[in-house]
Amino acid sequence: MTADDRPERYAYLGPRGTFTEAALLTLPGAAEAEHLPLATVPAVLDALRREEADTAVVALENSVEGSVPTTLDELATGEPLNIVGEIHLPVSFALLVRPGTGLADIKTVASHPIAQPQCRRWLLDNVPDAEWRAATSNAEAAQHVADGHYDAALAGSFAASRYGLSVLAEDIHDVADAVTRFVVLHRPCPPPAPTGMDKTTIVAFIGEDHPGALLEILTEFSVRGINLTLIQSRPTGAGLGSYLFWLDFEGHVADARVAEALMGLRRVCADVRFVGSYPRADQVRPAIRRGTHDKDFTEAATWLTSIRTGRP
Amino acid sequence: MTADDRPERYAYLGPRGTFTEAALLTLPGAAEAEHLPLATVPAVLDALRREEADTAVVALENSVEGSVPTTLDELATGEPLNIVGEIHLPVSFALLVRPGTGLADIKTVASHPIAQPQCRRWLLDNVPDAEWRAATSNAEAAQHVADGHYDAALAGSFAASRYGLSVLAEDIHDVADAVTRFVVLHRPCPPPAPTGMDKTTIVAFIGEDHPGALLEILTEFSVRGINLTLIQSRPTGAGLGSYLFWLDFEGHVADARVAEALMGLRRVCADVRFVGSYPRADQVRPAIRRGTHDKDFTEAATWLTSIRTGRP
Amino acid sequence: MTADDRPERYAYLGPRGTFTEAALLTLPGAAEAEHLPLATVPAVLDALRREEADTAVVALENSVEGSVPTTLDELATGEPLNIVGEIHLPVSFALLVRPGTGLADIKTVASHPIAQPQCRRWLLDNVPDAEWRAATSNAEAAQHVADGHYDAALAGSFAASRYGLSVLAEDIHDVADAVTRFVVLHRPCPPPAPTGMDKTTIVAFIGEDHPGALLEILTEFSVRGINLTLIQSRPTGAGLGSYLFWLDFEGHVADARVAEALMGLRRVCADVRFVGSYPRADQVRPAIRRGTHDKDFTEAATWLTSIRTGRP
Amino acid sequence: MTADDRPERYAYLGPRGTFTEAALLTLPGAAEAEHLPLATVPAVLDALRREEADTAVVALENSVEGSVPTTLDELATGEPLNIVGEIHLPVSFALLVRPGTGLADIKTVASHPIAQPQCRRWLLDNVPDAEWRAATSNAEAAQHVADGHYDAALAGSFAASRYGLSVLAEDIHDVADAVTRFVVLHRPCPPPAPTGMDKTTIVAFIGEDHPGALLEILTEFSVRGINLTLIQSRPTGAGLGSYLFWLDFEGHVADARVAEALMGLRRVCADVRFVGSYPRADQVRPAIRRGTHDKDFTEAATWLTSIRTGRP
Repeated sequence: MTADDRPERYAYLGPRGTFTEAALLTLPGAAEAEHLPLATVPAVLDALRREEADTAVVALENSVEGSVPTTLDELATGEPLNIVGEIHLPVSFALLVRPGTGLADIKTVASHPIAQPQCRRWLLDNVPDAEWRAATSNAEAAQHVADGHYDAALAGSFAASRYGLSVLAEDIHDVADAVTRFVVLHRPCPPPAPTGMDKTTIVAFIGEDHPGALLEILTEFSVRGINLTLIQSRPTGAGLGSYLFWLDFEGHVADARVAEALMGLRRVCADVRFVGSYPRADQVRPAIRRGTHDKDFTEAATWLTSIRTGRP
Repeated sequence: MTADDRPERYAYLGPRGTFTEAALLTLPGAAEAEHLPLATVPAVLDALRREEADTAVVALENSVEGSVPTTLDELATGEPLNIVGEIHLPVSFALLVRPGTGLADIKTVASHPIAQPQCRRWLLDNVPDAEWRAATSNAEAAQHVADGHYDAALAGSFAASRYGLSVLAEDIHDVADAVTRFVVLHRPCPPPAPTGMDKTTIVAFIGEDHPGALLEILTEFSVRGINLTLIQSRPTGAGLGSYLFWLDFEGHVADARVAEALMGLRRVCADVRFVGSYPRADQVRPAIRRGTHDKDFTEAATWLTSIRTGRP
Repeated sequence: MTADDRPERYAYLGPRGTFTEAALLTLPGAAEAEHLPLATVPAVLDALRREEADTAVVALENSVEGSVPTTLDELATGEPLNIVGEIHLPVSFALLVRPGTGLADIKTVASHPIAQPQCRRWLLDNVPDAEWRAATSNAEAAQHVADGHYDAALAGSFAASRYGLSVLAEDIHDVADAVTRFVVLHRPCPPPAPTGMDKTTIVAFIGEDHPGALLEILTEFSVRGINLTLIQSRPTGAGLGSYLFWLDFEGHVADARVAEALMGLRRVCADVRFVGSYPRADQVRPAIRRGTHDKDFTEAATWLTSIRTGRP
Repeated sequence: MTADDRPERYAYLGPRGTFTEAALLTLPGAAEAEHLPLATVPAVLDALRREEADTAVVALENSVEGSVPTTLDELATGEPLNIVGEIHLPVSFALLVRPGTGLADIKTVASHPIAQPQCRRWLLDNVPDAEWRAATSNAEAAQHVADGHYDAALAGSFAASRYGLSVLAEDIHDVADAVTRFVVLHRPCPPPAPTGMDKTTIVAFIGEDHPGALLEILTEFSVRGINLTLIQSRPTGAGLGSYLFWLDFEGHVADARVAEALMGLRRVCADVRFVGSYPRADQVRPAIRRGTHDKDFTEAATWLTSIRTGRP
């Protein structure tokens, strides 16, 4: 519930029955909330920006639906939004068919284009003669199977009941332990309180393409003992040699070591966008290097005052 | 022509009429070669691996068709292939319709899911009420328009004649100067001769997730004055904290500074895969830092011999 | 004059007539002050510590008298004192003799042991058969010549009148442009106000001998664009692998970039001793790197507050 | 014995009875060799250069006799010589007196100026009223005591018998565990064979005073996992901002990691002088970082050949 007793509104990549919907249903209270399944990632983010939704959920890494580069580029250069949480969902497909269909009956298998390579070996081994067909989402593929256009769909097993389909095979994935990472977004807001197991996302813009620019950026982290968990370079579209780096790293903007690193980046980069500090989905507690705890920063500041005033 | 007078065979992401086809047609002799349009990036690469094709062309960055993460992951961890060239193609769409269709008649616009966000603003301004529909490729979208399923397709203007369609609008793209980068692939082979304007691609694998691993990698480059042009981190799928970095950088494996950096990476990384050295599409000649020309390496080696033998 | 109308008391390496005395006479008001020439550097520093002097002047680099390692070690590990100024004096000797002595009469030349190698070539060329004799200071050497023990002394030309000697040759030095650097010391006090052309001295202690400890220290400077002007490693005497680094660098502890670097060192080193911030003798104004001016630190701190509070 | 049956000739800082003599007597065969005690460090080195000696022994660090800066500067910029070995000698003085003298009789104590601060506290505690007098060497101080000029000398206990003196106190030193480091020098020659416990000395010259020059130098070491054991910056005398760095580090020029680092320095510095690779006096075996053994370099070179030729 929101302050005015209106149910919370969640925008996400639809239609109903996608992995993104499955991800958002892991959030407390999301089952009772109002759902806005939308057709594209930009449409989801715009609904949040225009205050038609209170929260948005989109895939960020290793997605089986939606475009990860689109998410990165929208959050990096579109009207600002903040990440306030992340969700990890195992990558695992079901083969959905109309009741009564057997493996031998399958001539066509539909899915989002990104699902296909993640199940390729399974398809080759189990339905070697079936042709693959693209759909806008795995849920749309399921709809097409229900409509009789295709024989089978690769989708989450949770989509079966919604479309009146049967699960012919489950837990399909070529790579073990793969997960998709989703992010939970709000309009710009104070970050959630630190938990000691947090991650921070920023986007650093390089004005000119000088050798060593990336090394300079990474040194701002390493000199404060901060471990990166994701780095992606992207052209900004503002001409040759103009790059941005999407950077995820351990720690919270409330931590002294993170704060000093962010200020350092702010000073050396053409621009820095803060995208969010939020609890880690994997609840890994980072090792904090000697000399980089908050108390070390406080002690050093006290010492600095003493030498500046000549009272050591 | 190949050695046995058989025409060169090119595998690429089909169907006919894609941007990938337009990219490969920029290669000398490609127009007369045999074309193998295939349905997915993995299928294209497998055709090359199985010697059903001599050359493959796939999108690597900022693609409007096919999945860039798929290309990266296949080249990073699949059976090895070598990049021997790259092609830059401006990102620019045409709106293809059946002859006689006007803007006011358009209720549905089809395209590959990645094309939609790149034309979003244009669509909002020009056909605000049209609904967008996904297709496996822009060429397939054109086919669906020709078949009467949809009213318009976003595709390359070169696709119009192939599908008997008209170009209602051209040069559609929300971001100016965007290009898609395609790579030309062979089975493992000696790299093409250096041109002085070359790029090299490698994949570096980090065995354990230690803070500073990436800094260690970048230092191997910076200490030899080598400028990176692309960096992407990806989980390897081999468990938590096991990462790979896709790295594009200036120079050729035949250059002494590149050779020493590669050997350094080989020594400090869990593994390094050499993906290729090839001429840059943008023909930019890199600035070579003081002390990193081949002659500087030769002079230093001569000096080392003199001090090792006591004849300075 | 001091607060209680007592003349300022200056301790320095004596006896009267040394280069150190010449250096302190360049300080405003020093000619009218009370002079305490003492026999050793430790004696000079102890006089200041025991409040028998208000100011001490000792040689730090490239000295022609006194022991530079002794000065470093005393300031690094003895009871703390602060550098509040520095003085550069050209290295240039005179050959002092009793009136009437000619070059051909000279059988013995006395000097401090450190003066001898700085005049070696001149001695070989001009008095090749003379034997060299050690003295505790060049001034003592002059005294021995006045007493008739030796025939000539290498000393400052200013020492001639004090000992009743003649200057037989001037401007003697084997290396052109050499200078000796002296430091002006007070008991611990607030540093002199920044001038924009300042230097800071610290001593950094490494607790354990880990590879990369020095690199870690230097990175704290380089990441804030601070240029080192002197670095000396010294064993601390506290056992194998326990080192200290004497570090002089550009800037003043009142500068934001220096303050952050000092706090960084404080956090990563076993210990840091602040020795002083003081105007540079050479009045060189340092180049301040993009992003490291005080206003850049202030702007970054404002930005940090905005993102921490969600008001970007 | 030398090749022509002539006894080996050792030049060192004399006179007889110095610590330097004690150091050279620890070398095998040195007792039977011909000794050339000379008055200054430059005289010792010149004797070797002019082939009047086969080997020279001089103090380099924490010396109690002779000038360490002189040794560094001579080896850095004088006519080249090579370090082929090093000797560590504990810093420990004896108080030498004429037979029959007691502590209460001592009015004057003579020594080299560098010995005085190392025994200052002992002198204050035991002969508080004695005045200190400078001598060119501790051995000369002993001679002056024998001659009756002074009452006591600080020198090595080994000097007592040579000058007919008694040892009134032994093992005098203010700092525990201090050692003096001496180096054994030859004219330029192939370095001694590696022992696995070696040290290398070089001098790196910086042409222009650019911020980060030292960091650049240290990175050449750290990127190959090489640990520094001594670093001293010195002005070269060739004008403002022209520096040299004296660098001692672990490893031998025959080691691949040292060879590559030296070639890297050669490429980035204005000049590099190789001073020597030699067995460590402390026989510490360095930890060799993962990826920096000789076999890692060999394996990486083999891999480079395979990728250059397309045969992975």
